[in-house]
Amino acid sequence: MKYVYNFGNGKADGSAADKNLLGGKGANLAEMTNLNIPVPPGFTITTEVCTYYMEHAAYPSELSDQINQSLELLEKIMSQGFGKPSNPLLVSVRSGARTSMPGMMETVLNVGLTSETIPGMIAMTGNERFVYDAYRRLITMYSDVVMEKSAGIEPAEGKGIREQLDHIMDKMKEENGYASDTDLSASDLKTLSELFKEKIIKVLGNPFPDDAMEQLLGGITAVFGSWNGKRAISYRRIESIPDHWGTAVNVQTMVFGNMGDDSATGVAFTRNPATGEKEFYGEWLANAQGEDVVAGIRTPNPLNSSTKTDDSFVQVGLDEYMPENYQLLHDIQQRLENHYSDMQDIEFTIQKGKLWMLQTRVGKRTGNAAIRMAVEMVAEGMIDEKTAVLRVKPEQLDEVMHPMVDFKAEKIAKVLAKGLPAGPGGGVGQIVFSADDAESWYKQGKKVILVRNETSPEDVHGMHVAEAILTAKGGMTSHAALVARGWGKCCIVGCSALNISASEKKMTIDGVVLKEGDWLTMNGTSGKVYEGKLPLIKPDLEANTEFTALLKMADKFKSLKIRTNADSPEDASLARVFGAEGIGLCRTEHMFFEPDRIISMRKMILSNTLQERRAAVMKLLPFQREDFYGILKAMSPHAVTIRLLDPPLHEFLPQTEEQIEELAGELDVSPENIKKRIGYLHELNPMLGHRGCRLGVAYPEITEMQARAIFEATIQLIDEGVNPMPEVMVPLVGTVTELISQKKLIIATADAVMEEHGIRFDYLVGTMIELPRACITADEIALEAEFFSFGTNDLTQTTYGFSRDDIGNFLPKYLEDKILTHDPFQSIDQKGVGELVKMAVQKGRSQKQDLKIGICGEHGGDPKSIEFFNSAGLDYVSCSPFRVPIARLAAAHATLNS
Amino acid sequence: MKYVYNFGNGKADGSAADKNLLGGKGANLAEMTNLNIPVPPGFTITTEVCTYYMEHAAYPSELSDQINQSLELLEKIMSQGFGKPSNPLLVSVRSGARTSMPGMMETVLNVGLTSETIPGMIAMTGNERFVYDAYRRLITMYSDVVMEKSAGIEPAEGKGIREQLDHIMDKMKEENGYASDTDLSASDLKTLSELFKEKIIKVLGNPFPDDAMEQLLGGITAVFGSWNGKRAISYRRIESIPDHWGTAVNVQTMVFGNMGDDSATGVAFTRNPATGEKEFYGEWLANAQGEDVVAGIRTPNPLNSSTKTDDSFVQVGLDEYMPENYQLLHDIQQRLENHYSDMQDIEFTIQKGKLWMLQTRVGKRTGNAAIRMAVEMVAEGMIDEKTAVLRVKPEQLDEVMHPMVDFKAEKIAKVLAKGLPAGPGGGVGQIVFSADDAESWYKQGKKVILVRNETSPEDVHGMHVAEAILTAKGGMTSHAALVARGWGKCCIVGCSALNISASEKKMTIDGVVLKEGDWLTMNGTSGKVYEGKLPLIKPDLEANTEFTALLKMADKFKSLKIRTNADSPEDASLARVFGAEGIGLCRTEHMFFEPDRIISMRKMILSNTLQERRAAVMKLLPFQREDFYGILKAMSPHAVTIRLLDPPLHEFLPQTEEQIEELAGELDVSPENIKKRIGYLHELNPMLGHRGCRLGVAYPEITEMQARAIFEATIQLIDEGVNPMPEVMVPLVGTVTELISQKKLIIATADAVMEEHGIRFDYLVGTMIELPRACITADEIALEAEFFSFGTNDLTQTTYGFSRDDIGNFLPKYLEDKILTHDPFQSIDQKGVGELVKMAVQKGRSQKQDLKIGICGEHGGDPKSIEFFNSAGLDYVSCSPFRVPIARLAAAHATLNS
Repeated sequence: MKYVYNFGNGKADGSAADKNLLGGKGANLAEMTNLNIPVPPGFTITTEVCTYYMEHAAYPSELSDQINQSLELLEKIMSQGFGKPSNPLLVSVRSGARTSMPGMMETVLNVGLTSETIPGMIAMTGNERFVYDAYRRLITMYSDVVMEKSAGIEPAEGKGIREQLDHIMDKMKEENGYASDTDLSASDLKTLSELFKEKIIKVLGNPFPDDAMEQLLGGITAVFGSWNGKRAISYRRIESIPDHWGTAVNVQTMVFGNMGDDSATGVAFTRNPATGEKEFYGEWLANAQGEDVVAGIRTPNPLNSSTKTDDSFVQVGLDEYMPENYQLLHDIQQRLENHYSDMQDIEFTIQKGKLWMLQTRVGKRTGNAAIRMAVEMVAEGMIDEKTAVLRVKPEQLDEVMHPMVDFKAEKIAKVLAKGLPAGPGGGVGQIVFSADDAESWYKQGKKVILVRNETSPEDVHGMHVAEAILTAKGGMTSHAALVARGWGKCCIVGCSALNISASEKKMTIDGVVLKEGDWLTMNGTSGKVYEGKLPLIKPDLEANTEFTALLKMADKFKSLKIRTNADSPEDASLARVFGAEGIGLCRTEHMFFEPDRIISMRKMILSNTLQERRAAVMKLLPFQREDFYGILKAMSPHAVTIRLLDPPLHEFLPQTEEQIEELAGELDVSPENIKKRIGYLHELNPMLGHRGCRLGVAYPEITEMQARAIFEATIQLIDEGVNPMPEVMVPLVGTVTELISQKKLIIATADAVMEEHGIRFDYLVGTMIELPRACITADEIALEAEFFSFGTNDLTQTTYGFSRDDIGNFLPKYLEDKILTHDPFQSIDQKGVGELVKMAVQKGRSQKQDLKIGICGEHGGDPKSIEFFNSAGLDYVSCSPFRVPIARLAAAHATLNS
Repeated sequence: MKYVYNFGNGKADGSAADKNLLGGKGANLAEMTNLNIPVPPGFTITTEVCTYYMEHAAYPSELSDQINQSLELLEKIMSQGFGKPSNPLLVSVRSGARTSMPGMMETVLNVGLTSETIPGMIAMTGNERFVYDAYRRLITMYSDVVMEKSAGIEPAEGKGIREQLDHIMDKMKEENGYASDTDLSASDLKTLSELFKEKIIKVLGNPFPDDAMEQLLGGITAVFGSWNGKRAISYRRIESIPDHWGTAVNVQTMVFGNMGDDSATGVAFTRNPATGEKEFYGEWLANAQGEDVVAGIRTPNPLNSSTKTDDSFVQVGLDEYMPENYQLLHDIQQRLENHYSDMQDIEFTIQKGKLWMLQTRVGKRTGNAAIRMAVEMVAEGMIDEKTAVLRVKPEQLDEVMHPMVDFKAEKIAKVLAKGLPAGPGGGVGQIVFSADDAESWYKQGKKVILVRNETSPEDVHGMHVAEAILTAKGGMTSHAALVARGWGKCCIVGCSALNISASEKKMTIDGVVLKEGDWLTMNGTSGKVYEGKLPLIKPDLEANTEFTALLKMADKFKSLKIRTNADSPEDASLARVFGAEGIGLCRTEHMFFEPDRIISMRKMILSNTLQERRAAVMKLLPFQREDFYGILKAMSPHAVTIRLLDPPLHEFLPQTEEQIEELAGELDVSPENIKKRIGYLHELNPMLGHRGCRLGVAYPEITEMQARAIFEATIQLIDEGVNPMPEVMVPLVGTVTELISQKKLIIATADAVMEEHGIRFDYLVGTMIELPRACITADEIALEAEFFSFGTNDLTQTTYGFSRDDIGNFLPKYLEDKILTHDPFQSIDQKGVGELVKMAVQKGRSQKQDLKIGICGEHGGDPKSIEFFNSAGLDYVSCSPFRVPIARLAAAHATLNS
């Protein structure tokens, strides 16, 4: 079994294809070596050793020999000796997993420095200070990483060995009045090494090893061990990286960028990772180690003149400082980008005038950059359209579409609280605590953030005018979250640190008191809340030609159609701009909340006779007709799926004493009467109560009125030469008889309207599949339905028995304990809810082969869910307007990945 | 195609086997004819004609000829002529469906009387008055049934033709000063006929037909038409009789029991239908028509001396009045019972000294009678045990087990209101409006009925002492219903006519005001509520040897085991008496409501730290241990399935301002603090909230405490030489990871307890399957579960998306509109919920072939559901103690019918 792979001198055992075995770093080092790019030689110990080590707590027996052989080869290539007094070889020991896990695992540098090799090193470099500086770095790192961490010692905070050694150095600097580390002389550093070693024995009970081989093996074990370190494990959880992958270990000849003014080090990107612009972009430092660039102790220089900014124009570029090496580096980066056909993130070191490449990997990039690069690389002929489409993650489009908090400002701001990121983008505004206040402040030209414990449909007017919404309660699919996401509005929910006193118009967060009018900044993409005003960066999508181009490419590959959830002509138009091919869910309930309508609605609910009720309902007809007219027109000739009234009637009734009094006055009934009715309509579990088609069964006049409004609007549009396509959707069907009862009313109404106007029109009658029973009996239901549309929010609620409004109390614990891998309201639960979806598709199509099937729940905008829906054979997904581009791209990914 | 079947003169075309074709009445008339029992000859027009007529609104073309042929045959047998002047033949036209639908369809008697046949009839009978009396009866019946009803005329109430004709007769009686109909002379009746016929032309526009054949065909059509009459349709809905069965029509020679003192008529049972005693039992009247016995205008005589009561001992028995005919009748009834091997309900008429049998059918009987007959008939060798077991309907056992309102008293009492029959039996008591009042009145030795809008766990103490419970809200599985049924207590829920003002301690029902202390009587089996006190009849089951014998027979045939749902040693013992083979569901939540426990529970909920919480929980340990000790002991060596805490924590918190103040004092915290916590725990949909195993995940210390209590009780019992068998059940599992998390805690606790005591014991850890997701992923869950127990209440709630507490608002409408055929909380929905059950059984056993599977939802006591669970392959059903006998019998039926 081969456990160790060599690279160096233009020849490597592995290649970029061996990522799983050698890790990303090791595979790319091998690949660069094969490409004849100057890489410090070394060898990679495979991930299999890591797996073996985790299982057996010991190494494979062959490993030791293979390491020795590789060391010998390395010594031969370098003409140096590891642990030898003359021409000593120093190596670095670094982790390298399949995917980059930046900073999550350990590294040990300068391995091989011992009392025996130090003199040889000084002779070789002619720089005693440099050698002792390297030595004290080795001691610090090794004692921390190998002797303390990998031994499982957990010192109190701030009492680790590293801190104790730092403290010794700080003391020395203080005593000598040194301002910076560079003031330390060779002899200072030598003294320091001795002090360090004494301290280590005292604190850890063991001496710092003075044997090169012992250092090397200790380093290797520490790196493997760090795979199971706390940080690494929790990072893997978040990124869904399997534990069994393991890490490889790279042992590589040390090269030094801090050997004098002819040395340097830097990191660079083959294109600008923030903007995507095709320019060689990076940072470097003369006479420095790689860590110095990253750590931010010294401000690095811009790599070249062309990327200097207003702030950095006085600094020297590498192109100016070392033109030849810059040219060499420039050629290499171009070769690497061409070779990998993707933007590379590289690290390099120049040691005494000689350029070495330490790493290349695919570079991380912002959403904007990803889009631009993908589109430009197609234009350059570097990649094909399929690759370009797959290069951009659907979620990255989100960044591009919403105003974002300036990440530079955010980096240095203090997080006040954190909640669930329910609506994307950034929001800045003044705090208000009620929807009415939001509206009146908005009318005064102010930007407001509406802060509530939770929101209800009565708050919608205030939510609409708010820059952002912040709630103390609720989950990712609470009312606030749903509404905000529908509008693409910044929203954070379930921010339990808020302690709101709406009556006093103030709130307390972790001791900080914020009053009405105070400024707040919210990052709805991360869930973070900041005090005060941070700058926002706004997108200009129409000017973003790459955005449009990428989505056009995506459309070529996707097979799912993308519809939108929209309740107004404005939303419908917006969604069309984003590429929506119809409305998959037009909710009608909010239409009843407007002040001139709610009174009729309430009258209806409080009616005692069918006649009264019918009269009240019919007052709503002109409003509804107008609503549907606008929406059908905006979406024509695409289909508009209109869901009949869904929420329980008590949601429309007033809640406060005051509102009840007011209503009583308006309706000329006693407040007691209204309260009695409210009591009667009160439900213990409204989610499972008298709602959905159950309303239409009990109050057929509501269905009739809504159907009439839809069909009269249809006729009106046909008269005007528009081509409307209404699809009437019956919600919450659990048994086919419910659908039959409602369908009968709808068809009768359609027939009547056609008769009255002498015009025929097309329409469909279908149903939402949002209850387990609907899935189980989908074959029966399909016989009566012209389309299915999955309501996966409610289906998830009923399949799991989770109230989405109430899971806030236990979901965090469930995720923490890994009882759930993710929030099933965000991404569909394929094993449970997904099985029901598949069952319904199969049963439905078994009766009606070409049954149109879509999904209009929140999952319609979630890329992972879209992939599932694609594989389940759905015809379309429907999502909020701002998710439409994301869904288009995700749908393309789904086809390409299937 | 043969549409008409003859019978008469000892020879019939059909037999008892032809029930579907000839209806029950027709088939039995044929059968009796074949047995050479004297039956007035006639013929039966088949149910197929009815079906044909309903489909085509016309008769098959062959029908007319076949009727004519049968009439000819009849004339020949009787030597009479239909519509002929001399020796005229009169016939009756009666309905007869597969199952008896008493009084739901029409009948026309005396058909064939016309101006032409009347003189011949007078000549034949020598009794003019009799003939004109028969004539006016024919005219009344015919004008009502044929001319008005079957013509679809719907007169205003009280304005029907029958009422108008009755009015004419009343007027004549008044003018002549007659007290009774019998005072009308022949000439009076003749005049009356003429007046009737004039009125008919005036009101209905058509003359009464004076043609025998026209009368006959009109009658036949009217009877067929009455199959689709309002009354018949709604009866079929209730009794689940399919519309397509149709009715047959029996045309039969008229015989008259009112032809003088040598004539008589009566109805009788071959055994006493109320008690089951083997005695010929019935009623008769001399010189009367059959209707007179039923109608109650004259008080009928007891059939024989042996069945005379204290009230009837002065009346004459038929055995005394007509000894020979009585002996004949007695022989016939014995032959019939032997022939049919079941108790018969017979009708007879004696015309001028000649006995005719008009009907025989299986007699309806009370639950008590059904049991006694079944057991005695086995002893007599008349039927085998299998037949005996199938003879008693499981529901009939209910009657036997509970005190019932005396049916004689109930018959004449006025129904005050009607609700859902949630708990069986009768209850009489004084009204109280709060649980506390119930308790204090009970302590004063009073019998109370607790009346509430709805009940909550805090009311349990009051419910326990109440004779019966009445609620205005809630469905068949509301809190009140569940608790009451568990105790076998009379309960009516969802009685929406109640208008309760608990603060004023009064309620209004339909204008009647009832105050605290007023008496009320409830029939929990029918859902009827009566004002005042009606007498109750109490059962004595231990003395009921037939009851015990029948259940022993049933046990021989059943394959399902029957467990009980019991939360206390008392209930467990009671259930054992009823034959329970273990506890399938021991709920633990009510155990926390007792005053000395609730405080610790509340302390736990209000704790801020894990430590405080653990301390509070552990205070409950001794109580719980005592609970489990008692229950495990009472059921030993049978298994006891204990469900871990299930309801959301907010159910344990106080609700009123006053209770909050009190608790604040007890816990030494501020009321605001408690209110805040209550607000935090408030859930919009508690059914889908933080409950079930979600509690155990969030608060593992609850699981640990409960597991410890169970296992310490187990050890204690083993020490005492008892053989306990605990099964720990984790509720509301939706994903296997939840079960794993709880199982780990339970096993660790068991191990710890075993270790501490040095004793090993057996126990199982399993889960409730009560969410769709659990059914879908049952294969995964089975790997971790040692048993499954279906919680079909919650499974029905989530599968349908129905909150059982809230369906009261729309369920009645759903049943009325036939959207649901039945309440799915009463009898399992086989198509939806049942499919999930089957899926879970199949998936579960696919991983664990011998997985023990039961059901502990309310459906466990429903016979239809039990049949389903038997076929689904379950091992046991569990139900409340009072349902155990019913379940035993139903389980036997399930096997025998499968």
